[in-house]
Amino acid sequence: MRLMKKEKRMKQIILTGDRPTGRLHVGHYVGSLKERVRLQNSGKFDEIYIMIADAQALTDNADNPEKVRQNVLQVALDYLAVGIDPAKAHIFIQSMVPQLTELSFYYMNLVTVSRLQRNPTVKAEIQQKNFESSIPVGFFTYPISQAADITAFKATTVPAGEDQRPMIEQCCEIVHKFNAVYGETLVEPEIVLPQNSACLRLPGTDGKAKMSKSLGNCIYLSDEPEDIKKKIMSMYTDPNHLRVQDPGKVEGNPVFIYLDAFSRPEHFAEFLPEYQNLDELKAHYQRGGLGDVKVKKFLNSVMQAELEPIRNRRKEWEQRLPEVVEILKEGSAVAEKTAAATLAEVRKSMKIDYFTDDNLLK
Amino acid sequence: MRLMKKEKRMKQIILTGDRPTGRLHVGHYVGSLKERVRLQNSGKFDEIYIMIADAQALTDNADNPEKVRQNVLQVALDYLAVGIDPAKAHIFIQSMVPQLTELSFYYMNLVTVSRLQRNPTVKAEIQQKNFESSIPVGFFTYPISQAADITAFKATTVPAGEDQRPMIEQCCEIVHKFNAVYGETLVEPEIVLPQNSACLRLPGTDGKAKMSKSLGNCIYLSDEPEDIKKKIMSMYTDPNHLRVQDPGKVEGNPVFIYLDAFSRPEHFAEFLPEYQNLDELKAHYQRGGLGDVKVKKFLNSVMQAELEPIRNRRKEWEQRLPEVVEILKEGSAVAEKTAAATLAEVRKSMKIDYFTDDNLLK
Repeated sequence: MRLMKKEKRMKQIILTGDRPTGRLHVGHYVGSLKERVRLQNSGKFDEIYIMIADAQALTDNADNPEKVRQNVLQVALDYLAVGIDPAKAHIFIQSMVPQLTELSFYYMNLVTVSRLQRNPTVKAEIQQKNFESSIPVGFFTYPISQAADITAFKATTVPAGEDQRPMIEQCCEIVHKFNAVYGETLVEPEIVLPQNSACLRLPGTDGKAKMSKSLGNCIYLSDEPEDIKKKIMSMYTDPNHLRVQDPGKVEGNPVFIYLDAFSRPEHFAEFLPEYQNLDELKAHYQRGGLGDVKVKKFLNSVMQAELEPIRNRRKEWEQRLPEVVEILKEGSAVAEKTAAATLAEVRKSMKIDYFTDDNLLK
Repeated sequence: MRLMKKEKRMKQIILTGDRPTGRLHVGHYVGSLKERVRLQNSGKFDEIYIMIADAQALTDNADNPEKVRQNVLQVALDYLAVGIDPAKAHIFIQSMVPQLTELSFYYMNLVTVSRLQRNPTVKAEIQQKNFESSIPVGFFTYPISQAADITAFKATTVPAGEDQRPMIEQCCEIVHKFNAVYGETLVEPEIVLPQNSACLRLPGTDGKAKMSKSLGNCIYLSDEPEDIKKKIMSMYTDPNHLRVQDPGKVEGNPVFIYLDAFSRPEHFAEFLPEYQNLDELKAHYQRGGLGDVKVKKFLNSVMQAELEPIRNRRKEWEQRLPEVVEILKEGSAVAEKTAAATLAEVRKSMKIDYFTDDNLLK
């Protein structure tokens, strides 16, 4: 019996989140949000924490805290809209859990500057943001802060995009180093990627790899039907597919990548019964004789069907903002309690719990 | 009358401290501790905070938390021994004030990586500790953490050694940047150096510029009289002063640097009445005919006189360790309260006080 107790199943805990620097878009949706809702409703997880990472957003938006502040509620609305259920998942605001900065502070002693410099995600982001030598220290060190976010909740599972893999590796290194130096305390997380490869990174509607507000190439979860339609009908496709009869390419063609990510067989029966499934549609496009407009109209139908209930739920929640704030308050209180318990263990392992049990006199 | 209220004198506040990586020695004493006691008793300061910087010590001692832990009490004893008065100064432990890590976290967004790389103190320490490319991030970023320590208490005055000047400059830059971006919130500190230039950096007894436990070249405040004598009598002097009749050099000669730092005119009347003052003694040494042993014996008398009451007070406090812990608890509680008030202002300025007055809905 004793043995069985020891073999008790480890708690399954999710930590994930987003930086509140803008409303969430369909890239976030297929890349992460949809998967979170699936995991949330799978019944396989004991605790789920979803973090609105305002403190992380400030690391490269220090001059514009108002933008971050305004988007905290927007991201919360997007979460509730896609089906994150506050009864099952704790939605919280990062800066409301001060224990995270304390963990981050101590983890910084376990990582070298050169190790951070080698982090491919940070490297790519530094290039993309044109930071070069003027990288804010907070941005440079955010992989460590992210390790604090994950470990504070003893998360076993981090649903995230492929680009986050180096961050999880960094986190596992910190966990390993901490446990080796101070004794077994922290839990190593695992990344869970979206199952559909088209969802790993959805391109912008202009075909650019990265969706970004400044490029105007995103479809937002809060977009109105006519905006969605407009964006889809003007999407970038195969630039060599000039006439309907020309053969077209589906690889790297945003319209088909979006269909890969969003369309299901039943959509064909409903919106495009001339085809059984996506493979048939692709084959026709590739051999020629299928115009972009027809494919885009189908994509529009598919996406309108997917986004309509989300938009409607979002509008309902927009009428109940004080309730949304309550959800965030409650989620943050639960998150703080969990993080405080982990921090107490961390401090005990580090032997900096001086005032507990007169430890300083020992 | 209104105008007079506005012109009200600004609160004068001291923040200073030491890393608990060993007992404090005479270098700390003349370089900083003596000055702190003088300032403490000057009646010119409204609040005095003296920090045992254990969290900072861990930035380059992460693998050895026990060393840091053991030295927290030792440093507290050294403070009480030199005359820091808990009724006038709050002695606190850095890691017991978690608000400091939170401030540090947000300040990191206001400093660039290249600015930290240019910090001369950090540069020198990295070289000295042979860190090269394996610098822990916590150590690399400690100037930012130190700015958090200083600003948390709105310190106006930081009594410190010359080597700390670049740290105070870094702090002022952060204050300036924070106030420019988020509005007037933080206070710029000023460094106060020891008035006697010999005290700026006392060399080791072996003549090396840096006193260090590993070099065995320090006289500790807790050293017994016979150890002090032994260390002084074997001190490095002018290597070319071989025979008594030879002319000797006083510049760069540790024995004379120590006399510059410790001896007062009344010591001559008491211990070496053949000379009026240090200038006469130096002149004799320089023209030849004065042996090292005689000078060292005088230095020993001077230092024994200075260190005896300190050692005795230390021994008294060693018998009352639970009281020392109480002093640290009370000091840390006051420090936490002050830091929490500053942090609340910081968060308000940054507009991340979402849950105050329903700010998130505004």
